Amino acid sequence: MEYLTSPQEMQYWANEQRRVGRTVAFVPTMGYFHQGHLKLMEYGRSRADRLVVSLFVNPLQFGPGEDFARYPRDEKRDQALAQMAGVDVLFLPAPEDLYPVHFQTYVTVEKVTQGLCGASRPGHFRGVATVVAKLFNLVKPHWAIFGLKDYQQYVVIRQMVRDLNLDLEVVGRPTIRENDGLAMSSRNVYLSPQERGSALSLSAALKTAQERCRAGEHRAAILLDEVVRRISGQPDTRLDYARIVDPETLEGVEFIKDPAVLILAAWVGKTRLIDNGFLGGYPDCPA
Amino acid sequence: MEYLTSPQEMQYWANEQRRVGRTVAFVPTMGYFHQGHLKLMEYGRSRADRLVVSLFVNPLQFGPGEDFARYPRDEKRDQALAQMAGVDVLFLPAPEDLYPVHFQTYVTVEKVTQGLCGASRPGHFRGVATVVAKLFNLVKPHWAIFGLKDYQQYVVIRQMVRDLNLDLEVVGRPTIRENDGLAMSSRNVYLSPQERGSALSLSAALKTAQERCRAGEHRAAILLDEVVRRISGQPDTRLDYARIVDPETLEGVEFIKDPAVLILAAWVGKTRLIDNGFLGGYPDCPA
Repeated sequence: MEYLTSPQEMQYWANEQRRVGRTVAFVPTMGYFHQGHLKLMEYGRSRADRLVVSLFVNPLQFGPGEDFARYPRDEKRDQALAQMAGVDVLFLPAPEDLYPVHFQTYVTVEKVTQGLCGASRPGHFRGVATVVAKLFNLVKPHWAIFGLKDYQQYVVIRQMVRDLNLDLEVVGRPTIRENDGLAMSSRNVYLSPQERGSALSLSAALKTAQERCRAGEHRAAILLDEVVRRISGQPDTRLDYARIVDPETLEGVEFIKDPAVLILAAWVGKTRLIDNGFLGGYPDCPA
Repeated sequence: MEYLTSPQEMQYWANEQRRVGRTVAFVPTMGYFHQGHLKLMEYGRSRADRLVVSLFVNPLQFGPGEDFARYPRDEKRDQALAQMAGVDVLFLPAPEDLYPVHFQTYVTVEKVTQGLCGASRPGHFRGVATVVAKLFNLVKPHWAIFGLKDYQQYVVIRQMVRDLNLDLEVVGRPTIRENDGLAMSSRNVYLSPQERGSALSLSAALKTAQERCRAGEHRAAILLDEVVRRISGQPDTRLDYARIVDPETLEGVEFIKDPAVLILAAWVGKTRLIDNGFLGGYPDCPA
């Protein structure tokens, strides 16, 4: 496995691959790898001749008062895991190389960032879109692989790629869960044992809604009512939002006839968790 | 010469050139070619194995009430001129292909777009940066060639390329002028004979300022006073701005010790004209 830190070297490597006709898969990450990351790497590994993983905790996507400073980091462990996952290049850029002194250019995706996490975290998706555009230009992948746990992020990136004519395909891969259902996240490490119990209500509520939808309840308001009740009933837990939305536009859906996504965010103690699940079918990324 | 209208075909062509190791120069234009455009093509032709010119009157960079609808167009003549200039691909995308229905992603360059034309034309440089980012991703040039007549645009694009790690070099080429000094522009066709007389005050005032600066007058305020007086004294002419700025940051300069740019915009009748010239040296793009 090669370690690259310089953007110039990364781009040079990318051009070499293109020149000799190799395909490249890319998994952008903020590190602190869990099984979800490793599954994305495994998929990328199987899809392309070369696999690049970037590890960069992107300051631009954290708001003031968010957890940038304490975001969990363990670079040594991440390196060992990436090596085992068959990663060809681990790209570890320095913040000052991606954001030099006069940096001032941002990529904004408008409609699909308006609600959900975009409403709770102003500037977050601008930070995500900007860094991902930069990384795409440095890594020049044929496929960029994202976890569907961050569903809105996946939609934002896909929209950006389409709108800016970026020459790559965005692939969304299913959320990986702990045995008890909790969606894997680097932030789960913040949870106390009691909070971890409360956090289970997110995936449990999702699962129930999926089951009720399959059983014929297609009214979004009814399904959401139960989700709200279930999550809000937990100790130390505050629901940020729970909505049923169109998988492409993220606009609210009142009655589920086409596939829709139930998407939610909640604070459990001081930790903000997100989760989502498809209702009425699972388009373009079968589990 | 090949004509391409489909973004997909353009990108496919670009990938082919990269695959076989050819270099590509790119001149993005809004058409209605004059000698300035042809000089950019000539330069591109001399620099790379292949030359792409795009012709697209970009609705996104025109404000409400600006001249999008009446912007001069003559596609047949442009095609003949491009052919003669040795262009390999003339790329003529349709607006609905570059901006499909759900289009919603924008590139914003912040600091260098704040003043000058950015102040007078809100949203203009967002439109420019966005379309140019898209065109770069479709054409994948090694060199993108811009006229320095649109000096702020050149700075904006260069900043965007650096900030987003786009893999190309932005080349600025000197303004081409009519024999009497008027900077060539597709918009000059709007001018009545009397307005054309008034319009000469822009280049004349620039030239005088350059001479006075060479002769030792390095106080920006003194030089600008004369520019303002000279242009504002013309019939039907209203100066929009005249400033002396740092060539990189476009921040105002009070005393010229390093190279600086005198940059100005003025309304002559209903036509908005811009011009600029270097003071105290001509950095990184010798005439």
